[in-house]
Amino acid sequence: MGQRPPEGLGSRDRILWAATTMLGEGPGAILSVRAVAARAEVSTGSLRHHFPTQRELMDAALGVVYDVLLPEDSIHDRSLSAHERLVACLQRLLAPAGDKVDSRDAWRRAFESYVAGEPTQAARDEFLAIDREIRRRLDYCLRVLQGEGAVPAGDNSARVALLLNVVNGLSIAQVMPTEVPRAQAELDTLRLAADYVLGEAKGAGGK
Amino acid sequence: MGQRPPEGLGSRDRILWAATTMLGEGPGAILSVRAVAARAEVSTGSLRHHFPTQRELMDAALGVVYDVLLPEDSIHDRSLSAHERLVACLQRLLAPAGDKVDSRDAWRRAFESYVAGEPTQAARDEFLAIDREIRRRLDYCLRVLQGEGAVPAGDNSARVALLLNVVNGLSIAQVMPTEVPRAQAELDTLRLAADYVLGEAKGAGGK
Repeated sequence: MGQRPPEGLGSRDRILWAATTMLGEGPGAILSVRAVAARAEVSTGSLRHHFPTQRELMDAALGVVYDVLLPEDSIHDRSLSAHERLVACLQRLLAPAGDKVDSRDAWRRAFESYVAGEPTQAARDEFLAIDREIRRRLDYCLRVLQGEGAVPAGDNSARVALLLNVVNGLSIAQVMPTEVPRAQAELDTLRLAADYVLGEAKGAGGK
Repeated sequence: MGQRPPEGLGSRDRILWAATTMLGEGPGAILSVRAVAARAEVSTGSLRHHFPTQRELMDAALGVVYDVLLPEDSIHDRSLSAHERLVACLQRLLAPAGDKVDSRDAWRRAFESYVAGEPTQAARDEFLAIDREIRRRLDYCLRVLQGEGAVPAGDNSARVALLLNVVNGLSIAQVMPTEVPRAQAELDTLRLAADYVLGEAKGAGGK
């Protein structure tokens, strides 16, 4: 609040700066194109020129956010095996900001916004945009590995859905009671999931 | 509350009746062995005779509950393929009581008990017992299929963990915003997961 766009940015970058700062203010903070334009100190006409729909604006803003949260460089690092890189990609999804985010707190906020009551349209739109962006990132990792022949050709959307559900299952498990330390079991699960997508499954479980 | 054990039950069955009715009263309702003995109208000595530890009591009571929620007969139904039976087993985990449970409401209660604040010891014990029982059921499905040669030999615990995380990921997705109808995507994911465990993966996604 009260923040002003950094000096020297063009109008497109000012808009992205405004949208990403508003995303950081909590679910549903991007209430309207008008509010983003005001924060960016551009006209709504200029905003519409760069981002004809709210969805395009949201997707572009989340692209910027996730470039920071989920850097994609390491998927290209051929000093690591395809399996290691895919596991690393899944680990980043599981803990997008490393240890800086308290997962219990993150789930509390998600529940407050989406489950406790009917979510607002703005919260809904934002959740869907985040979901699209995460799937896009995961699809990108798979396409890089496909390019190397490490992942079989074919449509990735079902693979993305499977991997995302595994990650979300692990994420919710992090805030539920447990008897045993979770870190090893988590890594084992991500490795099994990566085995599968890489078609390395020669009898799951038997390593 | 105020319920009395049905006539004609032996002491072990009265205890199980008491424990299961208390489980139905919400997370953490089984506060003590003493309370279960009182509801069952047996002495704590008699309870200790049948169930030497609280964990044995909880596991036995949950066994009874899940016999109703997750009948295991269909895993033996050889008129269905191993793949169909495993998918059905996962579907029952995803919706243990069919359409009778509102998943949003179920997640709200789970969050209230485990995530909103630090869970009580009773709620914790109950969650862990439920988790053990669900893993046991899933392991049982895999062992039946192993007996037929449909699932590769080997330790099932990593497979169980993977499948359970997929199911939990789908379950939490059910209460989050979505753009598309979820039923088909859910089934696709369960089928992919079953493919994997059955070692049928000939390039995931390419059906």
